Formats: sequence, structure tokens, C-alpha cells
Amino acid sequence: MVILGIDPGSTITGYGAIEAAKERPLSCLDYGGIHLATVADFHGKIKRIYDEIGGLISKHRPDFIVLEDIFYSQNAQAALKLGQARGASILAALNNQVPVAAYSAREVKQAITGHGAASKEQVRRMVEAILRLEIRISPLDASDALAIAICHAGRLKLA
Amino acid sequence: MVILGIDPGSTITGYGAIEAAKERPLSCLDYGGIHLATVADFHGKIKRIYDEIGGLISKHRPDFIVLEDIFYSQNAQAALKLGQARGASILAALNNQVPVAAYSAREVKQAITGHGAASKEQVRRMVEAILRLEIRISPLDASDALAIAICHAGRLKLA
Repeated sequence: MVILGIDPGSTITGYGAIEAAKERPLSCLDYGGIHLATVADFHGKIKRIYDEIGGLISKHRPDFIVLEDIFYSQNAQAALKLGQARGASILAALNNQVPVAAYSAREVKQAITGHGAASKEQVRRMVEAILRLEIRISPLDASDALAIAICHAGRLKLA
Repeated sequence: MVILGIDPGSTITGYGAIEAAKERPLSCLDYGGIHLATVADFHGKIKRIYDEIGGLISKHRPDFIVLEDIFYSQNAQAALKLGQARGASILAALNNQVPVAAYSAREVKQAITGHGAASKEQVRRMVEAILRLEIRISPLDASDALAIAICHAGRLKLA
């Protein structure tokens, strides 16, 4: 089973795809960041996120797309931008018939590191260990996306 | 020229389509609300907004889709929901090759009523007068959507 984690953001949207199967270690298929800082117009960023995730779906044929459930944000303006990026991610999944799952940041951190208030760095190191990656994952948005995918594999009893 | 105004919301997304042409009064083609309260799952709401706006685009073939530019919200949680609804509206437009324009609430109110702090009721009454509608527009989300469309017609010197 292929699980694609997405960490939506209007500057960088992180993604990470893993392969999960019973009685086999998880493996990393792909990860990276969709860099949006150079897309001048905000509507263009939304479209770019949608199209890039559509491309990742074509490439990896995920069985699930998994996102973070977001409940708060530093301010309403940031939340509006994040909401639009998240909406684009959800639509890319649903318009390609891929079911969407979501977990809170706390659930993801708890599943990956054993404590719900872990830092992004701690999450990254654990993701690298779980997926046996010998290079440092960058950007951090990508390790967050892989963490969300790993969390979902755990819930499905595949990790 | 057909202009479709959208007032995104995760409970009701209002819409209103007008026909605008030089030296002719604006006319109302359609308005209404996409009611989302009965769609249980939030991801389903996003998809419903996208699909319904896609249906309106097929029906009216708008030259522009016009939205409110949003800068703040009562709280981050509301902003996140609104952002996702807004993202779905933008994608419905761009994935159907319809250009998107946006105005702030203040600009729309100023254009319709002459003052930027007008109430929704004042906007509704002016929209009814401008479009020579003899019935009361409901929901208010639809009169807001028509107001945004009328504002854009004004900017294009078609009203």
C-alpha cells in the first residue's frame, strides 16, 4: 500500500510517499517540497499545489492521502492562507478518487516519537531512523509529510 | 459578458451570476446558496463546493469568477474553514479556465452602496434595486455574491 503524506503550506508544501505492507519495514518512495515562494500570485499558488499533488498521485498511485488536521494557527491571516493550501490538497486527492485521512499534529508526533510535543527536528530524526534514510531529510515540511504518512501506516497496523 | 460572484463559506456558499454589457443595464441570471450544513464530513463540503461551482460554470459559462479578498476572520479556526472553502472556489474557476478577480468587502460595499461599512441588509437592498429584482434575495450569501459580481462589472466599466 502506498501512503502519500502532505504538509500544506503557502510557502512550501511538503510531501512524502511511503510503501507499507504487513510484516515488512516501511520504505520511503519519494519526498520533497513544492516551493511556492516564486509563484507571485496567490491564486497561482493554490493551482500549483493542486497540480503538483495531482502529478504525485499519477506517479505514485497512493491508496491514501494523509494530512494534518489543523485546529489553530498563529493568526487569522495565516490560517486563511493555510486553509486555501489545505483545500487544494484535499481536492487534488478527492478529484483523483484518493481517500483522505487526517491526524492532529499531536497524534503524529506521539506516533513517531512517543511524545506529542516533540520538535520538528526530533520528528525528522525519527522519520530518518524509521525509513532507514542515510541522508538528512530536507525541507522539514517533507519530514513532517513523511511522519503523517507513517502515522497512518501505524493506524492501519502496517508499521 | 457573464460574471459569477461567489461568497465562499463552509455552511452556505453563496453565488450570483449577472450579465453585463456596455450601455445596457445589468441583469441577474441566477443566484442561490450551496447549503453545506447537511454534508457531514468537512472534506465532503470542500468537494461539494468545487463540484457545485463547476456545475454553475457549465451552466453559465462565466467570463470571470469574482470572490471577496479576505484579510481577517473572527478566529483562526473559522479562517481555516473559510480558507478551504475559498480554495475550492478558486480551483473550480482555474481548473475550468475561468479567470479569478477579487475585491475586499470594503471595496464591494463602497461600489454598491457608496459606503464601505454598509450592512449586509443595505447591500441586499441595493443589489435588488440595481438588478431590478422584485423579490427579496435569499440567502444573504447570494446577495453578497451578486454584489461582488456587480462590483467587478463596475471596474470593467460595464455598470
